[in-house]
Amino acid sequence: MTPSASPLSSQSTALQVRLAAREGLFSGHTSGLASAHVQVNLVLLPAALADDFGQFCERNPVACPLLAVTRPGQTDWPALGQDLDLRSDVPRYHLWRRGERVAELTDLSEIWRDDLVSFALGCSFTFEHALLAAGIPLRHVQQGRNVAMYRSTLATVPAGPFAGPVVVSMRPLRAADAIRAIQITSALPQAHGAPVHLGDPSLIGIADLARPDYGDAVELRSDELPVFWACGVTPQAALQAARPDFCITHAPGHMLVTDLLHRAPTTP
Amino acid sequence: MTPSASPLSSQSTALQVRLAAREGLFSGHTSGLASAHVQVNLVLLPAALADDFGQFCERNPVACPLLAVTRPGQTDWPALGQDLDLRSDVPRYHLWRRGERVAELTDLSEIWRDDLVSFALGCSFTFEHALLAAGIPLRHVQQGRNVAMYRSTLATVPAGPFAGPVVVSMRPLRAADAIRAIQITSALPQAHGAPVHLGDPSLIGIADLARPDYGDAVELRSDELPVFWACGVTPQAALQAARPDFCITHAPGHMLVTDLLHRAPTTP
Repeated sequence: MTPSASPLSSQSTALQVRLAAREGLFSGHTSGLASAHVQVNLVLLPAALADDFGQFCERNPVACPLLAVTRPGQTDWPALGQDLDLRSDVPRYHLWRRGERVAELTDLSEIWRDDLVSFALGCSFTFEHALLAAGIPLRHVQQGRNVAMYRSTLATVPAGPFAGPVVVSMRPLRAADAIRAIQITSALPQAHGAPVHLGDPSLIGIADLARPDYGDAVELRSDELPVFWACGVTPQAALQAARPDFCITHAPGHMLVTDLLHRAPTTP
Repeated sequence: MTPSASPLSSQSTALQVRLAAREGLFSGHTSGLASAHVQVNLVLLPAALADDFGQFCERNPVACPLLAVTRPGQTDWPALGQDLDLRSDVPRYHLWRRGERVAELTDLSEIWRDDLVSFALGCSFTFEHALLAAGIPLRHVQQGRNVAMYRSTLATVPAGPFAGPVVVSMRPLRAADAIRAIQITSALPQAHGAPVHLGDPSLIGIADLARPDYGDAVELRSDELPVFWACGVTPQAALQAARPDFCITHAPGHMLVTDLLHRAPTTP
């Protein structure tokens, strides 16, 4: 039995997920798959824009925690995984032209360019893994939904053509869990770190929690606070502002699964 | 000039504050005095009750962070200060009998008993020092008021006759400051640690923030969250439940100033 012939699960290895994507056997969400392993947001840009985008990440480390960058044209990534191919190992890619999403792809071989620089950014799956391990319930996970995301009035620090709002993800938590979640995620700066806001959504420009800009709405109960983290969709908003001629990202929720292991969560 | 002849200030040494209290020259609040030094809550109990009260502290370390305990009858406390006299160095004491406060005293010489065991418990002044050092504004400090305190519906874990509610202190903070305050105070378990609640006061049984059970009310603005920490008045509520024949505490806000130095606050 080849790795990709078995159904993917939380127990899969990262390589099994990547091979299944590469072989065209899997093009779904990666939430919960190979759960011991770090998943990352991907941005692939022409080399001419790489310095500006790298600086944008450095100036906005909470929204855009930069984990690794390739050389131009590099298709493997030994720092992130053995036998990794950037052209095929993400289940689903988005192709962007001048700030508009023009195609959804499962393989980049036809459009690969030798000037592409790839950026791997930390992902909230890492801190969600730590929160769940600490026994903190996450409603969107329980309900099998995508997390609710909103364009906030918090602004990123621009770099070159890259600018725009901080996009935040929201998780409803009871106060005691919110306090523990702040403690736990403060120790995970490579995955968005501590929340950027909690409580009244209107203070960061969110008029209606029931109408997220991305993802799925979830119920907020009367004994819960909405807790907002900076989100890995922030770079996509910056790409829409910068309108590069050519850019590739992962499709939201369809992440690159790396060989890196989550740190064991520590309870403060 | 003797130490006590000069006016006390944030720059005073701990010994200067203690000597001024000992010599009857000072009987006021210690908030802001000798600000480099740790101030502590005091509970003095007959030795027959010491084991139960010590266990109460151990079972409720957030509300009652036990820093040090004396032998029965001990009046000095080298671990907490040079030339320290427990009978005179607190600016104001309360004498309790059967759970009722029966006297306010500035000196215990007349009523000292050789079976008294003294307990030093961490104090919120320590974490307030760290919050202010991090640039987080505290309204009651700005307004020169006592902090607002409330009996909550959170319960302590009983030990012997000691039981009762967790008393909480409330500070109004903007969300970003609340998040930083959680990070900072999480690192100070010897001074009540992280908040126990934030947001809706009714969830911990507080009907009206404008009517605190102890201390002074402060305004809560529309862009702020009420943030609640376990408070050093909790042991006094437990003493009222236990109704010991004889007990001494400091008067709220009139603390024992120790020679211990605050740790340098670290910003996460």
